[in-house]
Amino acid sequence: MTDMCKQKPWVYLDNNATTRTDPRVVEAMLPFLRDEYANPSSLHDLGVTAKGAVRAARGQVSALIGAERDSDIVFTSGGSESNNTAILSALETQGERSEIVTSAVEHPAVLALCAQLENTGRAKIHRIPVDGQGDLILNAYRKALSERTALVSVQWANNETGVLFPVEMLASMAHASEALFHCDAVQAAGRVAINVKETEIDMLSISAHKMHGPKGIGALYVRNGMKLAPLIHGGHQERGRRAGTENTPAIVGFGVAAKLAAQELQHDMNRISLLRDYLEREILRLVPTAIRVGDRCNCLPNTLNIAFENIEADSILLMLNRESIAASSGSACTSGSLNPSHVLTAMKIPFSHLRGSVRFSLSRENSDYDVDRVIEVLQHVVSDLQTDSVPMEAAYA
Amino acid sequence: MTDMCKQKPWVYLDNNATTRTDPRVVEAMLPFLRDEYANPSSLHDLGVTAKGAVRAARGQVSALIGAERDSDIVFTSGGSESNNTAILSALETQGERSEIVTSAVEHPAVLALCAQLENTGRAKIHRIPVDGQGDLILNAYRKALSERTALVSVQWANNETGVLFPVEMLASMAHASEALFHCDAVQAAGRVAINVKETEIDMLSISAHKMHGPKGIGALYVRNGMKLAPLIHGGHQERGRRAGTENTPAIVGFGVAAKLAAQELQHDMNRISLLRDYLEREILRLVPTAIRVGDRCNCLPNTLNIAFENIEADSILLMLNRESIAASSGSACTSGSLNPSHVLTAMKIPFSHLRGSVRFSLSRENSDYDVDRVIEVLQHVVSDLQTDSVPMEAAYA
Repeated sequence: MTDMCKQKPWVYLDNNATTRTDPRVVEAMLPFLRDEYANPSSLHDLGVTAKGAVRAARGQVSALIGAERDSDIVFTSGGSESNNTAILSALETQGERSEIVTSAVEHPAVLALCAQLENTGRAKIHRIPVDGQGDLILNAYRKALSERTALVSVQWANNETGVLFPVEMLASMAHASEALFHCDAVQAAGRVAINVKETEIDMLSISAHKMHGPKGIGALYVRNGMKLAPLIHGGHQERGRRAGTENTPAIVGFGVAAKLAAQELQHDMNRISLLRDYLEREILRLVPTAIRVGDRCNCLPNTLNIAFENIEADSILLMLNRESIAASSGSACTSGSLNPSHVLTAMKIPFSHLRGSVRFSLSRENSDYDVDRVIEVLQHVVSDLQTDSVPMEAAYA
Repeated sequence: MTDMCKQKPWVYLDNNATTRTDPRVVEAMLPFLRDEYANPSSLHDLGVTAKGAVRAARGQVSALIGAERDSDIVFTSGGSESNNTAILSALETQGERSEIVTSAVEHPAVLALCAQLENTGRAKIHRIPVDGQGDLILNAYRKALSERTALVSVQWANNETGVLFPVEMLASMAHASEALFHCDAVQAAGRVAINVKETEIDMLSISAHKMHGPKGIGALYVRNGMKLAPLIHGGHQERGRRAGTENTPAIVGFGVAAKLAAQELQHDMNRISLLRDYLEREILRLVPTAIRVGDRCNCLPNTLNIAFENIEADSILLMLNRESIAASSGSACTSGSLNPSHVLTAMKIPFSHLRGSVRFSLSRENSDYDVDRVIEVLQHVVSDLQTDSVPMEAAYA
C-alpha cells in the first residue's frame, strides 16, 4: 500500500454505473461522427445512408431482446427517458385507471417520477415491499392489483443488489387485472437472456451504456399494436413516438453493442459469475462479519453487494480508490446522498451493516487479476478500518 | 449532367437540417468515448475526471450564449427535448395561467406540443401570424398577451426561411404581462450573436448538431433563480433538473463546438452571408420567375429559401441529389409530409410557388466552389423542369 500502487492500471468494478464503450462499438460509430453526418430524416442520398444505418441498428437492438418487430423499438436518450415515457404514457392511455404498482426498490427514474405523480395527485402509487433477500413479496403484489391499476412498473434486475424479479409472472398477473406492464431492464439487458415476445411485457426500458455501448442512447420496447403517448412531441421521428433528430452515431453504436452482447452473453456471463462467486467467497472468508446483500440464487451474474459491519462504505471506497480500484456504494444516480440506500433500507439490512454496503459490478472486461487485486487490497483496507471502528449504533446515536 | 458527375464530392447545403461534426469536436470526444468512460456521478477518481470535463463544457456552452452563470445551462438530449421541457415547465410553474402565445411558424417541437396541449384542454394556444416577409405581426402579438398568459415561446430564427424575430423586444413585452418567455434558438445559436443576460429571455433552447457539434445533445438555458419542472424525473443530475446519466462524450463535443462557434462566428458568418447573397443573385438572375422567401434584411446569414414557379421542389431536389448536391424543401423534421410547408402557408406565398421552395443552408464549411457548382447545375435543372411544367393551379385542380 505505497504510493507506487497508484501507478497500477485501474480495476473497474463499477459496471452497473456505466461500462467501457467497447472499441468495436467506437469503431462502428466513427464514420457516423465523421463523414456520414447527414440527418436521417433528410431525403437526399446522404440522409438515406444515415437512415439505413439507423434501420440496421434497430434490428440489432430488437434481436437482443427478442422483439416481434423491429418497429417495436423506440430509440430514446437513455434509460431514464424510457422509464418516464412508459409510465406517463400508460397514465395517458389507460383512461380512468390511475394507480401504479411498483416496487420499493426501483431505480430513481421510476421512484422519483412516481413520487411526483403522487404529490401532484395524478396517480396513487403502491410500492410493493421486498423481503430480507430483496425478493418481491408476491402476496402484497397480488393484493395491490385491481381494476384501478393503470400500470405495473417493476425492474428486471435491481441495480444495487442484482436481485432478479420474476417479471414474466408479474406481467401475467398484471394482465389478469388488465393493467399494462412495464419493465425497467436497464441492468438486465445484455447480462441475462431476454425474449420479450415470449412474455406478456408491454414496455421494456434498456440503455446502451450499461452494455458497453455509448452514453446518451437507450430504447423503449413497445409491444406491437400498443399505443404510446410520446414524452417529447415534435417531428415524426420514431414513427411519431419520440421527436428529435435521430442520434445516428449513438444508435449505430447501440446496435453493435447489442449484437456483441447477444453473441457473447452466454460465454461472458458464465465466466463473470464464476469470478463474482470467487470474489464473494474470498471476501466472506477474510471478513466473516460481512454479509452478502440480496438473494444469491436469483441474481445478475455480474453483481455482488457486500455489507461490512460497523464500517462506512465511503471509507472503504476512498481507500480502494487510492489503490485505483473503482467500486461504489450503490447507484450513481443517488450518489452524494447522505441517506442510506433505499434498497437496503427496504430489505431491512441490520443497522450495523446498513452504511457499509459496497457494490462490486463486473463486466466481460474483468479478469482474474482484477478480482485477485481487489481481494488483496480489501484485506488491508478492512483490517485498517476495523481497528478504528465503533458500532454504528454509537456513531449515529 | 452525365454519370461522371456522380463522382464529384458532395456539396452540402442542408446545414439547417444538421451540420458536419467538426473534426476538432470529434477529436475532443474520442478520449471520452474510449478511456474516460466513467459515470460523472461516480465518486471515484474516474468519475471525478468525467465530472470535470462536463463542468468545463458547461462553461463553454454558457459562454456562447452569455449566460450569467454556468449552472444556468441544463444539458438535454437536443432541441426538441429542450423545447418540450420549457413549455411544460412553464405550465406547471405558472399557477392559474394556462395560455401560451407562440408564432404560426415555429418548429414542430413547439407546434406539435402546443397542439397536443390544446387538444387535451391543458392550454389555450395563440398562434401569432406572420406577414408575407415572414415577420411577426406585432399588433397581433400585443393583443394576445394577457394576465392569462403562462408562456410566450417564439423562435430566434425560423428554420425554413432564416427570418429573425425581435425576441429581445418580445421578451420585454411578455414580462410586462408577467408571462415567462422561452426562445427556440436552435437555428440561431452559433450563427448570430446571443447574449441572454442582456435580454429578458427566461429560457432558451439550443442544439449542438446545428453548430458542428454532435447529435443527441442540446441545452436549455434557464435564467438564474428560475424554477424548472423537469421533463425527465430520476437521479439528481443537472441539479435535479434533468435525470439520466450525463452523456460525457457528447457534452464535451458540444463544449468544443460552442467554443469554436464563439471564436469564429463573426468571421465565418460575414463570409457565409456574402456567399449566400451571391447564390441568391445568381439564381434570381437565371430564373427571374423565382422569388426569395422571407425578409432579406432580417435573416440568418446562412439561409436562403427560393421558391420556383410551377415546379415541385422535390423534382429539383431529386435532380440536385443526382449531381451530389444536398439541399432540402424545408425542415427535416417535417420531411415526407405531402402538405406544403406550414411556414410558407402562413406567409401566404402564392400557390404557383408554394410547392417549389428550396432551402439552401450554408455553413462555415462551404466554399465559393460549392456555390458555383450549385448555380451551374441549377441552371440546367430548372430549364429542364420548366419545359415540362404546368401551372400549379392545373396540377392541383
